[in-house]
Amino acid sequence: MFVILVYDFAEKRVGKALKIARKYLHWVQNSVLEGEISNANYYKLKMELKSIMNPEEDSIIFYTFRTQKYSKREELGLKKGGDENII
Amino acid sequence: MFVILVYDFAEKRVGKALKIARKYLHWVQNSVLEGEISNANYYKLKMELKSIMNPEEDSIIFYTFRTQKYSKREELGLKKGGDENII
Repeated sequence: MFVILVYDFAEKRVGKALKIARKYLHWVQNSVLEGEISNANYYKLKMELKSIMNPEEDSIIFYTFRTQKYSKREELGLKKGGDENII
Repeated sequence: MFVILVYDFAEKRVGKALKIARKYLHWVQNSVLEGEISNANYYKLKMELKSIMNPEEDSIIFYTFRTQKYSKREELGLKKGGDENII
C-alpha cells in the first residue's frame, strides 16, 4: 500500500521520529514522508514510532491507500526531499 | 475532490499561509490541512498561496483524490485539529 505520514513531535524527539520513519519511507518535506510499504513494515513503523512518542505532546497522521489510481500529487515551490521524493 | 495539503513556509509567512488555507480546508496538524474542495476553490487556494509564497524558500504539496474509497486515515497521539478534524 501507499502511505503518507505527517508528524508533529516535540523538538527533542523530532530527530528520532524522522530517523525511524526514513527507514521505511521517503522524506518529502519537513515532517512529511511517503512511499510504498508492506503491511508488515507499516505495523513495525507504527510500533517504533509509538515506542518513542509522547501521546500527550506528539501527533502522527497516517493516510494509507490501497491504490494510487485516484490520487494526484502537486508540488509548489521548493522541493525539499531532493531526489528521494519521486514517487 | 478531497485534498490533503502539507506546507513548509518560512516563519514570517507561515501565519499568512495558514490563514489562507483555513478558508478552504480543515486544519488537522501543524502545517497539515485536509478537506473536500471544489475544482474552482482548489484553483483559488493555489493562486492565493502562490501569491504569498517565496518559491525558493517555501514548499507546498497537495495530494488530491477523486474518491476516498481506497483511503484510510489513522491518528496516533495528540489530535491537534480539535473538533475541526473530523472528515
